[in-house]
Amino acid sequence: MRISELSARSGVAIPTIKYYLREGMLHQGEQTAATRAEYDESHLRRLRLIRALLEVGRLPVAAIKQVIAAVEDETLPMHHMLGIAHWALGPTVEPEQGEEWRTARAEVDRLVGELGWTVADDAPTRDELAQTLVRMRQLGLHVDLAPYVEAARKLVTEVEMATIPFDGPRDAAVEALVLGTVLYGKAFDTLRRMAQESESAHRVGLR
Amino acid sequence: MRISELSARSGVAIPTIKYYLREGMLHQGEQTAATRAEYDESHLRRLRLIRALLEVGRLPVAAIKQVIAAVEDETLPMHHMLGIAHWALGPTVEPEQGEEWRTARAEVDRLVGELGWTVADDAPTRDELAQTLVRMRQLGLHVDLAPYVEAARKLVTEVEMATIPFDGPRDAAVEALVLGTVLYGKAFDTLRRMAQESESAHRVGLR
Repeated sequence: MRISELSARSGVAIPTIKYYLREGMLHQGEQTAATRAEYDESHLRRLRLIRALLEVGRLPVAAIKQVIAAVEDETLPMHHMLGIAHWALGPTVEPEQGEEWRTARAEVDRLVGELGWTVADDAPTRDELAQTLVRMRQLGLHVDLAPYVEAARKLVTEVEMATIPFDGPRDAAVEALVLGTVLYGKAFDTLRRMAQESESAHRVGLR
Repeated sequence: MRISELSARSGVAIPTIKYYLREGMLHQGEQTAATRAEYDESHLRRLRLIRALLEVGRLPVAAIKQVIAAVEDETLPMHHMLGIAHWALGPTVEPEQGEEWRTARAEVDRLVGELGWTVADDAPTRDELAQTLVRMRQLGLHVDLAPYVEAARKLVTEVEMATIPFDGPRDAAVEALVLGTVLYGKAFDTLRRMAQESESAHRVGLR
């Protein structure tokens, strides 16, 4: 297809497509004349991936470039590629100084160990959870993560990871990961707040 | 206690406490001399609430003032007060034009009805969920919310709402709601991403 059709089918404006081509985020089409190139389904899939990372994942362009480099490096095992995309999706948390932080981080490491979860030692989620535990403690909140661990495990193993095409094209797997992580996360958070409103109404006898 | 002790125990600087007093976010202490006032546990609890809304809920001061006005209006039933705090915690989503939006919003309304959940017709969560559904559809994601609904229901009824002291002081109930909604939400999201990393490793045979 021509660039105009690629634009129409992807919903990405032509100048933006040209920008992605210049930046190396989108691979070149097949040159069929001096000023004409042909694009195919692989270009369409790549544009969908970029849109998903940009609009759904809200990732900065620099992070998107890293993810795309990982998608294109075919020598990188699937799991490592997904790990790079996955880590890019979360916030960056700076470890804090002090006893409180060390205790919380040690607790996270112990929890992951007890669960038998395969989470890298330097995964950013470890610091992220440690930070949340520190905030909870500072505000005097009694913390029981067990029901959350169980719900997360169940949703992830039974629903989310089941939709990722590990055997398909690398672009499609990363796209499914981004969509699942961000959109299902958002949907769940909203449903949780709806359930809170409803349960609060029931507890005070509104119905 | 004097303002210096109130500052030390709450972790809020004296100039900030004076700002809250001027703005009416913190009730005046008992005047014991021309330049001296006595504060009590109710002031401490209010400062903890403001900190929770500010630092954990990341609410703007204008929204915090609305929540505090609801806490102070004793004629407002507990459920309505919690509702005001709760709605302030979520993002504001502008309904979009068009068929896609109307279909998604109708689906949300049908879902809430089928679940028998008591969620106000104008609750912002309804538009928020509609927006997420629209984004999922636009990206071609097949949507099955049922497992998320069930997990949200279970966590909220069995854990989160169980910790809210509906019979205690109004400040304490709102504080518990904020902490629960925001911090447990954050903890859950992080645990989910850890479970994803682990499950991804298992599926590609890393262990």
